[in-house]
Amino acid sequence: MGQESTTKQTVTERHPIGVFDSGVGGLTVVRALRRALPGEDIVYLGDTARVPYGSKSPRTVEKYSLGCQRFLLDHHVKLVLIACNTASANALPALISASPVPVIGAVDPGAASALAATTNGHIGVIGTLGTVRSNAYARAIGARDANAKLTALACPMLVPLAEEGWIDDEVAALVARRYLTQLFAQDPAIDTLLLGCTHYPLLRDVLARIAAEIARRPVAVVDSASAMAEAARDALGSGPNRRNAAGQLQCFATDTSRLDELAPRFLGEPLTGFDLVDL
Amino acid sequence: MGQESTTKQTVTERHPIGVFDSGVGGLTVVRALRRALPGEDIVYLGDTARVPYGSKSPRTVEKYSLGCQRFLLDHHVKLVLIACNTASANALPALISASPVPVIGAVDPGAASALAATTNGHIGVIGTLGTVRSNAYARAIGARDANAKLTALACPMLVPLAEEGWIDDEVAALVARRYLTQLFAQDPAIDTLLLGCTHYPLLRDVLARIAAEIARRPVAVVDSASAMAEAARDALGSGPNRRNAAGQLQCFATDTSRLDELAPRFLGEPLTGFDLVDL
Repeated sequence: MGQESTTKQTVTERHPIGVFDSGVGGLTVVRALRRALPGEDIVYLGDTARVPYGSKSPRTVEKYSLGCQRFLLDHHVKLVLIACNTASANALPALISASPVPVIGAVDPGAASALAATTNGHIGVIGTLGTVRSNAYARAIGARDANAKLTALACPMLVPLAEEGWIDDEVAALVARRYLTQLFAQDPAIDTLLLGCTHYPLLRDVLARIAAEIARRPVAVVDSASAMAEAARDALGSGPNRRNAAGQLQCFATDTSRLDELAPRFLGEPLTGFDLVDL
Repeated sequence: MGQESTTKQTVTERHPIGVFDSGVGGLTVVRALRRALPGEDIVYLGDTARVPYGSKSPRTVEKYSLGCQRFLLDHHVKLVLIACNTASANALPALISASPVPVIGAVDPGAASALAATTNGHIGVIGTLGTVRSNAYARAIGARDANAKLTALACPMLVPLAEEGWIDDEVAALVARRYLTQLFAQDPAIDTLLLGCTHYPLLRDVLARIAAEIARRPVAVVDSASAMAEAARDALGSGPNRRNAAGQLQCFATDTSRLDELAPRFLGEPLTGFDLVDL
């Protein structure tokens, strides 16, 4: 194995990066990670038996998230990425307290991406009920730029739309128009739309088109995935795995239903399969 | 309490009926039970922390269903009703084996209702992926009438539509038309539509209207709830609680998010609240 032949690696360098999500949407983060840090091994856990987290209470989300992180730590990860926005928004402090390795959530990188993209400081964020109720994006953006104005809207129909694969048709357009009309009614000056859920990048085209139609000018559409991968690179500092061989991706899930159908859409490459685990 | 003053009750008669569902949709069954057996006490459990079951594998559905039933049995129920069609379709044998009291699923009563309503024997059933994949409705209908023809279609968008409260608008009509067009394309002679999911009765009006539009004649729309209540009355035999005071309804849930908003829509009466439990 390439891993064995690289003599200068420390044990830490050779350990994998851990990523968890409530389901398979977090594979959009894995996709960005593999692009930014191609030599790294990755252990991914999708809590597909208990998906979605987005409609559940902070207490339940925190409990399930701690279980996911424990599983990753048992696999000796050197870094934890919370690909799920709902988990990031509701469980980050608990996850950081419980982890001996650095933990990166989706919210702060997403906020940074949105602030980098906006020209007038008017940002709209869409996400699950759990993410929007937490106010985590408002806090993250406020901490970075007190003058930015954030408008948030929960869009519960977007995850099932993405999972049904109705991603750029009449239903998707109608649902996108209904939600984005509500969002822009609250702040017509929004110039940047932040996708605050790992499922939403699948709907990027229809959301961008309808947002531009409502705003009557182009609207930047950003998500957390690339910014999370950059945060992971920063967290590894001088310790990223520099071997040339492509890192291994090992995927686990708590339920296997629909994985073969859904996972490749988010990952953007074929999958070797998921191992089933009980949490 | 009325319960204490009725001297002729045996211990069995005084025990409650247990009902569980993956979420709050099963309250449509509680509504039918309270109408058919108004003196009975009912213990309801909604597994709202792990909802939905409909997209999950039979293994996970069986595991979670057994946990729900165990909770009801710990509350000394004299009868278990599985309000969730997905659980009924995938876990009924396991639930019956594990229960010392009678267990009533949603599938067989639903099949009986559809056969009672059809005039030409052409029935369409819509439900979750898990319910449709199980073929449980085809088996139940085939066992009762070998000449009946059943056509089944999974409609994953209908549960989120019902939960979002978009129950009779442009989006609901478009989604209903897309699914029902697929269903009637498989059998244009369908004269009865069976709602094979406890959420779907909220969408009854739009489904009936669009089905009639596609079929160009009225289509009977039936569900399991009333038939389950009748099956419960039969199962109690001479043992139903005959006191005149209205039975108590005690509700438990594994997550409390959105309960106050969603539960009354399904129950059709105000709720005194849910107690949170860990399973």
